Amino acid sequence: MAYNAALNELSTLLGNRLSRSKSDLDLHGRSESYFPLTVPEAVAYPETSNEVSEIVKICAKHDCPVVPWGVGTSLEGHALALTGGVTVDFTRMNRVLQVNQEDMDAVVQPGITREELNKELRATGLFFSVDPGANATLGGMAMTRASGTTAVRYGTMRDNVMALEVVLADGRIIRTGTRARKSSAGYDLTGLMVGSEGTLGLITEMTVKLQGQPEAVSSAVCAFPSMEDAVNAVIATIQMGIPMARIEFVDPATAAAFNSYAGSSFQEVPHLMLEFHGSERGVAEDAERFREIADDFGGSDFQWATKPEDRTALWTMRHNAHFACLASRPGARAIVTDICVPISRLAEAVEETREDIAGASIPGPIVGHVGDGNFHCILLFMEDDPKERAEAEDLSHRLSQRALRLGGTVTGEHGIGTGKMKYMEAEHGAAWDVMGDIKRVLDPQNILNPGKMVRQM
Amino acid sequence: MAYNAALNELSTLLGNRLSRSKSDLDLHGRSESYFPLTVPEAVAYPETSNEVSEIVKICAKHDCPVVPWGVGTSLEGHALALTGGVTVDFTRMNRVLQVNQEDMDAVVQPGITREELNKELRATGLFFSVDPGANATLGGMAMTRASGTTAVRYGTMRDNVMALEVVLADGRIIRTGTRARKSSAGYDLTGLMVGSEGTLGLITEMTVKLQGQPEAVSSAVCAFPSMEDAVNAVIATIQMGIPMARIEFVDPATAAAFNSYAGSSFQEVPHLMLEFHGSERGVAEDAERFREIADDFGGSDFQWATKPEDRTALWTMRHNAHFACLASRPGARAIVTDICVPISRLAEAVEETREDIAGASIPGPIVGHVGDGNFHCILLFMEDDPKERAEAEDLSHRLSQRALRLGGTVTGEHGIGTGKMKYMEAEHGAAWDVMGDIKRVLDPQNILNPGKMVRQM
Repeated sequence: MAYNAALNELSTLLGNRLSRSKSDLDLHGRSESYFPLTVPEAVAYPETSNEVSEIVKICAKHDCPVVPWGVGTSLEGHALALTGGVTVDFTRMNRVLQVNQEDMDAVVQPGITREELNKELRATGLFFSVDPGANATLGGMAMTRASGTTAVRYGTMRDNVMALEVVLADGRIIRTGTRARKSSAGYDLTGLMVGSEGTLGLITEMTVKLQGQPEAVSSAVCAFPSMEDAVNAVIATIQMGIPMARIEFVDPATAAAFNSYAGSSFQEVPHLMLEFHGSERGVAEDAERFREIADDFGGSDFQWATKPEDRTALWTMRHNAHFACLASRPGARAIVTDICVPISRLAEAVEETREDIAGASIPGPIVGHVGDGNFHCILLFMEDDPKERAEAEDLSHRLSQRALRLGGTVTGEHGIGTGKMKYMEAEHGAAWDVMGDIKRVLDPQNILNPGKMVRQM
Repeated sequence: MAYNAALNELSTLLGNRLSRSKSDLDLHGRSESYFPLTVPEAVAYPETSNEVSEIVKICAKHDCPVVPWGVGTSLEGHALALTGGVTVDFTRMNRVLQVNQEDMDAVVQPGITREELNKELRATGLFFSVDPGANATLGGMAMTRASGTTAVRYGTMRDNVMALEVVLADGRIIRTGTRARKSSAGYDLTGLMVGSEGTLGLITEMTVKLQGQPEAVSSAVCAFPSMEDAVNAVIATIQMGIPMARIEFVDPATAAAFNSYAGSSFQEVPHLMLEFHGSERGVAEDAERFREIADDFGGSDFQWATKPEDRTALWTMRHNAHFACLASRPGARAIVTDICVPISRLAEAVEETREDIAGASIPGPIVGHVGDGNFHCILLFMEDDPKERAEAEDLSHRLSQRALRLGGTVTGEHGIGTGKMKYMEAEHGAAWDVMGDIKRVLDPQNILNPGKMVRQM
């Protein structure tokens, strides 16, 4: 084994918190996606920032790769140890260190999941807003610049991470940012680390913004005659300044999948699912204004949910879209696409995609964070059918090309990982080389999540 | 002259758009602040991105410094050519290239000022929200990560710049970001460039977010018995989720300066100045809810302004605070401080500052973007009195130290320039070295705005 010297030193440092059991390696070699098993040589379970620093120093001494791991919900194979080495699992660094109610922020360790954090915040009247659906760790969400259904109102991880403690490739521990709400003091290293997918440093502590629990919440579902009508209703709503907390698109195939998975009774047509946050009067007024806009674009079958249990049912259904779609084709696996385009091009992007899928032999339900111009196709293929798999990959490839042609990005919120590396040059051109320059100067040995993000050194 | 060879080549490239007249050099050697005249050897007026690229290539060939210049409203001497060389004045690159109404964004050249842009947007129902008071260029605002009165609602330049075209130190032209609202595709180079003060590249084109003109706007002023009451009212307002578009603090000295400069009749006590944006019913409701909160904290003398001319008068007065304070001490110059702290520490920060100023022989009115925890002291000293100048510098120094002690930053929105370099190590620790690493790899010859931002190479 190539990294024995490193593993021996790590074993001395961590004792039984360095695991080399087959089950542990297999667990950390999987992704929630279509990538093959790719195991590390060992899994380290640090408990402090200093331990993370020591781990990285040992790995640097022996040129051993270091790959950070949250809970493995990545869809693009970010946390797979492509060239072996040590996976650093942050499970044991999952504490809330501070909740600053007046400042509406919290300092947490990166291994906490968003549901755990929100559970701890329950009594404070505050909540952490970023909600990618999966119960990911905050560290993982920061590293992939995650977002989800609420980004249209409260922003993505880019907007919600205020400060970080980061272990660099040589083991140095730095702090980026402060708890002040804004700063003009130097390069935005917090922003540089968010979305860097473990290739520039390992996050060991993070300060995140919290939001006040709204006084009132109401949700709604509305059917539209076409995708274009639904998108135009969204554009009008945004331009009117109606502050939606969520605005999600589901296509007819997804509506059908909901019906059979969750027992709902949607028409099999395009729908928007919405949520408003504010005062009692505010949400009622917002809802009424939205309804008027929806009417202009042929909206029908308006259903309101103000009772918490009805709202929960609605958003649970939306969050389970991935599983509902999988269940609609028993035995299938999925490639989940993630393009994001300027909203003026969204109807066109979805319509072209729908036609492309209609011409294929596999199903591909579409759901989208339509307020941001971001949508996903869940391309369902039978794993033992190479032709279907190739078809899914081709559809996904054409989607990425479509995103670039329409002035968008190949990934709105899932990240690059191993799945999107092939589009970095096309999306960024010479700017991709600049990313490589930054990687080279901050990780000259290329030990931090090697094989990801930048042109291979 | 050291850079003759470079200047000769530039002269061939630009003809009479390379200026070496004394008046031009003097104009570009001044800052709107207390720094001594620091002139470049020449001023270049490019008209295209390619010309900027050619200028930088020529300068790189001859190791000649390149310093970008907007309209010179910087308060920290960012655009002073500390080691001579060429100032690149973006005056002639001031066009709006695209307004995408459905997407609510615009593509502009960096030399456009925010007032020019908003004038061009007048018929669209959209506006560019970032408002630092001064009529700065968008390029300059991006480079200093500027913000101002509306950041509490619409964000800073960090939040409002979506994409950039940048000329790097070797003349390469890169594009960062897209017009999609979000992306997880790689390192956030847009965010890295915003706030980099011309030390990593020169912006030649930028895509910025626009906001919808609110249906209704109302403004208000309210007096408070103490700074602490005013700040506590703000904290409560934010926690209630009342969406203020502006919430500004003025101290008794500033209120007095307004009275004599603008003929207002404020009590000489702390005040908050507010603005709400939304629907007619929404702003009325927000205002009523704020009034109830203000009542809880001893607010009085509530004055509303819903008529546009009254609102304009109010915010013109606020924008002129700098000049009103200068006028309150004829012949004085000002050091304008800019700390930003977590809002829970704001009352303490302002109170300590007030006491410190009370113990000095010079006046120092205080105004603040209190929703962000950011405030300015306008420290007024007579230029020919070295003792007063030293006193102003000492007060400013203690303010910066106070910011760091309270978990904040030495600059919320003005930037580092030459004035705040001495605090970079204290604020960032080892992270400052990382900034230096990034600078070194992207500008190995140190020709881009040398002497700024990073430890000297």
